[in-house]
Amino acid sequence: MDIMKNDNNTMLADFYQLTMAHGYWQNRMAYKTSVFDMFFRRVPDGGGFSIMAGVEQLVEYLNDLKFTETDIEYLRSKKCFSEKFLNYLKDFKFECDVWAIKEGTPVFPGEPVVVVRGPAAQAQFIETMCLLTINHQCLIATKANRMVRAAKGRTVLEFGSRRAQGVSGAILGARAAFIGGANGTACVKADIDFGVPAAGTMAHSWVQMFETEFDAFKAYAEVYPDNCILLIDTYNVLKSGIPNAIRIAKEVLEPQGQRLKGVRIDSGDMAYLTKKMRKMLDEAGLEDCKIIASNALDENLIADLINQGACIDTFGIGERLIVSRSEPVFGGVYKLVATEEDGVYTPKIKISENVEKVTTPCFKQVYRLFDNETGMALGDVLTLHDEVIDESQPYTLFHPVHTWKKKVVENYTAKPLLEPIFVKGECVYKKRDVHEIRDFCKAQIETLWPEMLRFENPQEYYVDYSKKLWTIKQELLERF
Amino acid sequence: MDIMKNDNNTMLADFYQLTMAHGYWQNRMAYKTSVFDMFFRRVPDGGGFSIMAGVEQLVEYLNDLKFTETDIEYLRSKKCFSEKFLNYLKDFKFECDVWAIKEGTPVFPGEPVVVVRGPAAQAQFIETMCLLTINHQCLIATKANRMVRAAKGRTVLEFGSRRAQGVSGAILGARAAFIGGANGTACVKADIDFGVPAAGTMAHSWVQMFETEFDAFKAYAEVYPDNCILLIDTYNVLKSGIPNAIRIAKEVLEPQGQRLKGVRIDSGDMAYLTKKMRKMLDEAGLEDCKIIASNALDENLIADLINQGACIDTFGIGERLIVSRSEPVFGGVYKLVATEEDGVYTPKIKISENVEKVTTPCFKQVYRLFDNETGMALGDVLTLHDEVIDESQPYTLFHPVHTWKKKVVENYTAKPLLEPIFVKGECVYKKRDVHEIRDFCKAQIETLWPEMLRFENPQEYYVDYSKKLWTIKQELLERF
Repeated sequence: MDIMKNDNNTMLADFYQLTMAHGYWQNRMAYKTSVFDMFFRRVPDGGGFSIMAGVEQLVEYLNDLKFTETDIEYLRSKKCFSEKFLNYLKDFKFECDVWAIKEGTPVFPGEPVVVVRGPAAQAQFIETMCLLTINHQCLIATKANRMVRAAKGRTVLEFGSRRAQGVSGAILGARAAFIGGANGTACVKADIDFGVPAAGTMAHSWVQMFETEFDAFKAYAEVYPDNCILLIDTYNVLKSGIPNAIRIAKEVLEPQGQRLKGVRIDSGDMAYLTKKMRKMLDEAGLEDCKIIASNALDENLIADLINQGACIDTFGIGERLIVSRSEPVFGGVYKLVATEEDGVYTPKIKISENVEKVTTPCFKQVYRLFDNETGMALGDVLTLHDEVIDESQPYTLFHPVHTWKKKVVENYTAKPLLEPIFVKGECVYKKRDVHEIRDFCKAQIETLWPEMLRFENPQEYYVDYSKKLWTIKQELLERF
Repeated sequence: MDIMKNDNNTMLADFYQLTMAHGYWQNRMAYKTSVFDMFFRRVPDGGGFSIMAGVEQLVEYLNDLKFTETDIEYLRSKKCFSEKFLNYLKDFKFECDVWAIKEGTPVFPGEPVVVVRGPAAQAQFIETMCLLTINHQCLIATKANRMVRAAKGRTVLEFGSRRAQGVSGAILGARAAFIGGANGTACVKADIDFGVPAAGTMAHSWVQMFETEFDAFKAYAEVYPDNCILLIDTYNVLKSGIPNAIRIAKEVLEPQGQRLKGVRIDSGDMAYLTKKMRKMLDEAGLEDCKIIASNALDENLIADLINQGACIDTFGIGERLIVSRSEPVFGGVYKLVATEEDGVYTPKIKISENVEKVTTPCFKQVYRLFDNETGMALGDVLTLHDEVIDESQPYTLFHPVHTWKKKVVENYTAKPLLEPIFVKGECVYKKRDVHEIRDFCKAQIETLWPEMLRFENPQEYYVDYSKKLWTIKQELLERF
């Protein structure tokens, strides 16, 4: 079967999701209500925050959950699942409640970004795809935002499809990059499917296909007079590429009342070349001709080039964005935090010698406190799911380990971040346009203090616990 | 539209593939016969060879090439494509010849692994998906093989779906890892779609879901008495996990005539713990109980653990395999190497200041020379596509740069590596089972000298040119 044509990812699960689901079924625990958190432990590249993304694809996966006859046959062939269980799968109906933080929201280590509550067999089963979907897009959105911040208002384009890890890596990677602030993509399908603006001009092969570089430029300019961008580094940028581009502007475009829109370089020393190029273009009266640079770029190189006075209007970014080359994994995990019986929740904790790996128990909510005067984010508080923060009262934030570190905040708004996307298995998620998500992301990042936006050693954002949650965790820790 | 349901990846192209195709069309060059090579410049992780993979998915993509009404509408909305061109796309019929090196073959920098010959507009258009598909699977197959070699015969399982970059990253990643020598995967869908054996047992959440670890193990053993593998690090490996596992073996399994199949650890010091575990299990008469270890493993850690005497039978490998964390990009490129008119080929070269980036012109074949006595690979020779190597004559290999470095080989077989997969647009590829590809890969790697299998500083394999090809390249270089 061709996976690239597949219409259902139900079986994109780790095999142990099925052995456990069946095990719960055989032990009459399949319907035991359980609560799982998805959270991550650190921000990639040592950054100050990550960006939530991938919720729309999680919703699609959950809406499509269905075990086909082929799936059931496959499981039967494994000879370890009971017929009763296979019948249950045949008539499978998703019954969980799911909450997620909105796409485009800055998120921080330790806070639940997705919460799933429902029958143990179901809530456990969806782990793999929940993690895969959210991990992937959070990774790329977060990386793209670093590059966008480095570019300081210049245009950033995602050019990496050819180096993506698979088809969805390319298309959803372009989506996530756009959410994180990229201005567009080279990937046509991301435009068709999601409206991420796609653009592109020519490869070196276009230039090689003609007798001379000038012929190649001329042929292109005649087809695209109103959007002519020329790739100028096939032979020699300063001796051939730029002079030919200027001739095209003067001899082909200007007689038609058109301007040369841009030139692109994909090799060589970008700082040196773009300064020389800018000078030559300006001297020819082509001050409005944009310079586009693409070649192994990332946030560090972008920042360096800008510092060195490179004259670049648009950065085209390939492999270092589409796979987040410097750190290609977003390590979100999915952990049991509570079980429920007759309305009473039993908190669950996973202890580890490694203190970072100790989980935070309980069915929870995440509040973000915003200063009413400045609009800035003051910190996040993890609470029990039904706790209410009384905004009319001052709120005491305290460090969960160094509890003497306190801060009292007043005149704030406490916004719950986890929003329901499924209620008893029914989808209540409202689809949002990627442009809206991107705008939302930009606005939310503006609520973070500049100290948190540093690429290295950013100020740590407060992610604290409510007194109630802290007390429960402490009691569980003492018990072990 | 839900990309995870999409049945056609035709529009997974860079936008410039379309502007160029249209440009060729408008310049009456769309049918100019062109030849493109896909090749890569270096082996990831500094290894001695890569493994070819992804051909089956390239074939599926090419078989499915089709511009839908939606695609045409989208292109029309861009207002830069002529109606004649859009009509051409509507009735698009793939007409190229395509050759590829067989999946599972060790491949080397600089040699064409895919060759496409056909109308310029078409041969150019398929660049993005050709690169995406082959780059991704070559990357993962190559990485998996490093881990398999490090494991020296022990079992290696791919456990990384949750950290994969998208759905196809997970499923095709599992496929590629299997081709590279992994023994199986956790990913159920890779088993259903490709027959990559999937397996799995329990997560920590299973253990947490019960009152005690013993209860959790007992419940599991009762459901899976004949395949009982227990996760023993939820609380304390040596004080709780192993003693409970031994009790299960004695109290639950052995009375039924069953044995404890294995125990798995996912944290802690693997060398120290597994040695202690082995001793405790052996003393309890469980010498046949396997030890499975999984936690941030890669080829270096596997080699270190084995050197330290860790008692591990099976390595479960997550994020460092499924995204090839240490080097998550396989940098294959797609370059114009020739055009043809009336049966005469004009070689094309791309010059670069960076000598590594100079391309090798001409429509080519790759021969691998095998020693008839030992069966070992002697070197690869790039030739013109229609050159024949006369095996009855000695063949002189020479270094393409340091041409005085020569080696005369005799009593050899010259095997052409590029095999046709499409002839004039018709698919002639015969689908191969992944098990067959994996066996083939293993056998082919055995034809490489051990010096090429080193993880660092491996001996460089010969990739030389025929005298004819070398002469043409030299002439083109002199001309510039």
